[in-house]
Amino acid sequence: MSSDHGRAINFGAGPSALPLSVLEETQTGLLNFEGTGMGIAEISHRSKEFQAFLDEFEHNIRTQLDVPPTHRILFTQGGGTGQFSAVVLNLLARYRLLHPQASAADTVLDYVVTGSWSKKAAEEARRLSGGVATVRTAVDARVYSKDGKSFDNIPPHAEFAFADDPALIYYCENETVDGVEFSHDLESPAAFPFHLLKQDRLVPLVADYSSSFMCRPIPRLADHAVIYAGAQKNIGPAGLTILIVREDCIVDVDAAAKLGAPPVPLTLSYKTLADSGSLYNTPSVLAIYMAGLVLRRMKQNGGLPFYEEVNRRKAKKLYAAIHEGEQKGVFRRKVQQGSESWMNAVFEVLGEGAEKNFLEGAEKQGMKGLKGHRSVGGIRVSLYNAITEQEADKLIAYMTQFIAEANN
Amino acid sequence: MSSDHGRAINFGAGPSALPLSVLEETQTGLLNFEGTGMGIAEISHRSKEFQAFLDEFEHNIRTQLDVPPTHRILFTQGGGTGQFSAVVLNLLARYRLLHPQASAADTVLDYVVTGSWSKKAAEEARRLSGGVATVRTAVDARVYSKDGKSFDNIPPHAEFAFADDPALIYYCENETVDGVEFSHDLESPAAFPFHLLKQDRLVPLVADYSSSFMCRPIPRLADHAVIYAGAQKNIGPAGLTILIVREDCIVDVDAAAKLGAPPVPLTLSYKTLADSGSLYNTPSVLAIYMAGLVLRRMKQNGGLPFYEEVNRRKAKKLYAAIHEGEQKGVFRRKVQQGSESWMNAVFEVLGEGAEKNFLEGAEKQGMKGLKGHRSVGGIRVSLYNAITEQEADKLIAYMTQFIAEANN
Repeated sequence: MSSDHGRAINFGAGPSALPLSVLEETQTGLLNFEGTGMGIAEISHRSKEFQAFLDEFEHNIRTQLDVPPTHRILFTQGGGTGQFSAVVLNLLARYRLLHPQASAADTVLDYVVTGSWSKKAAEEARRLSGGVATVRTAVDARVYSKDGKSFDNIPPHAEFAFADDPALIYYCENETVDGVEFSHDLESPAAFPFHLLKQDRLVPLVADYSSSFMCRPIPRLADHAVIYAGAQKNIGPAGLTILIVREDCIVDVDAAAKLGAPPVPLTLSYKTLADSGSLYNTPSVLAIYMAGLVLRRMKQNGGLPFYEEVNRRKAKKLYAAIHEGEQKGVFRRKVQQGSESWMNAVFEVLGEGAEKNFLEGAEKQGMKGLKGHRSVGGIRVSLYNAITEQEADKLIAYMTQFIAEANN
Repeated sequence: MSSDHGRAINFGAGPSALPLSVLEETQTGLLNFEGTGMGIAEISHRSKEFQAFLDEFEHNIRTQLDVPPTHRILFTQGGGTGQFSAVVLNLLARYRLLHPQASAADTVLDYVVTGSWSKKAAEEARRLSGGVATVRTAVDARVYSKDGKSFDNIPPHAEFAFADDPALIYYCENETVDGVEFSHDLESPAAFPFHLLKQDRLVPLVADYSSSFMCRPIPRLADHAVIYAGAQKNIGPAGLTILIVREDCIVDVDAAAKLGAPPVPLTLSYKTLADSGSLYNTPSVLAIYMAGLVLRRMKQNGGLPFYEEVNRRKAKKLYAAIHEGEQKGVFRRKVQQGSESWMNAVFEVLGEGAEKNFLEGAEKQGMKGLKGHRSVGGIRVSLYNAITEQEADKLIAYMTQFIAEANN
């Protein structure tokens, strides 16, 4: 039932499955990195060998995502939570330099709240910007939910309300906990409403792509000010955060602080990262190595078009099974149609003890990590890049069988 | 010349050598962590298996360093540089809650500057505390240097000047770049002058132990408010920071911000870390795993007393060789006697081209990472825990031979 080395199929939401070939390459690199005689966790981050690896990693992100020269690719630590703070502090500094006299009322941070993570990000903005800015909810998806309190949808475009000249517009592309995602199809009502942004200036649009980074192309990437992602979903172990930052958002935070913007701790300053090539202090070398191997492998497999197609098929088949289960009274979808995440599918198993049976049956077949987030409950299936189509099919076959048996 | 797997002897300053047995255990854990069917980089940080590992790791630090119940052990990311900011923000919050009306002039941050890292830490304090606190240099070791400008000593006790009731007193126990370290012997003039601290209240004493953590016991640990260390020297890969924080320094930073203290980003807040058992957001699971294996191995080897004895012998023999080289006109010590670091020994090789010859000769014998920091130059030998006495002896034999040949 399990694959090589007694490995289970890991549908966990993160840290999550990584490709076996990458784990095996890491086994070698741990003892001797590219013939240096030193393991990758032991080598200086200032060595020419590591710099060459870092350059290739950056190149593989840039070419596969088509990142334009207007944007820098930076690496840091601290996960998405670190960036909740960093985007606020750096973009408040940027705004202060553009508008030295702006009042707190005029300095607006617009948050699109579609799930647990964007809600947390808005709360952090409130913590950090008291007295210097106003945090607004550009839209709250709970208002449009089936039960009036859950995050189960991307609201219609007409409901998004942005300030005329905000310091920041924030959204989370894929809500890992709630299983809600913006559509990839820009014509869809569940796409991010880029057309509502003022296009006569550089818009400070920030996107959290932590759980959907590198699963498919990023729509309108060039229109973003900051895109960030923790590595521990599609591309590596926890401990690495990847940033794509437009040049105008890399500002002199010390000059801004003199004008009244909050001071920016060194490790959160985009300028410090950019000026040092992400090597101001020791980066998480081993995590970068593993993510770099994942990116190299993605390129060999055909790049994002390959992963996009596989991920599309995996999600389509999985949601078909959930839908079938719903029609037969066995499952209940948590997320409204059109807003379902490719990466994290969330549903309930109906009936007393049924969820437990579902999880135990899956575990018997070597499938793990299916329990929903503690705040939402139910089942969560994460279909990150490292989950092969065959592995997804195995789960779907199990779900189909479970539905059939429940209807007997 | 090299050991198993074509491995060199790595005298680098960090990231640095790790025990081969730990790397080999990690190879196994990468594919299947303790029979879970998931690799350690793939498993949920909220799984019971990881929690048990984390608990053991914490226990092994607590028992080996004799950390009292008054102090919490916390894990985070961002390295020492992250803590440059965090200690300032958390201890300014603490001071504000104790003294809500204190002026910026009365809110004093006292920095003991003995090398590059404590100098950087003081600069970060100035960046973050503008308008709310006063950063003072309690002592600057350059004043007591041989050339009037280098960090080559720990100044005499009488030269340390602390404020009466500072918000923070900061020192760096071992300066990795400059090779200067406080003495372990509290009677030594180069020990930290604990006796100058006011003992009628809890002193906010902060120590950066990044490059000497777990190499020997920490003198007067219980008198510290915060001790922190990046893992990438003695105990693990880069990407993990270990904190030992006294309970009175874990404060409600939001309440302090309402009283005028600077806001504290979530990932830098000790309260956020403490309230969540260091699991507010995803920690660097793989780095924690490797460091946990190192601590487990240390315990099996006899704990800190064993490492202290070995490290003492390694340092004694190395400095004897440097001293011999100096007497014979081949080497020049950089650091004044009594202030030399056990972990990082810094010296010059005299004569044109001699340094290059020294490095090339060492490399031919499989010894790497000996080039000094770019800001100091010369040779730097790092003798972290993973460097065995035999490996240190091999370098010392090479140095002795180098001296003899230079004198021919």
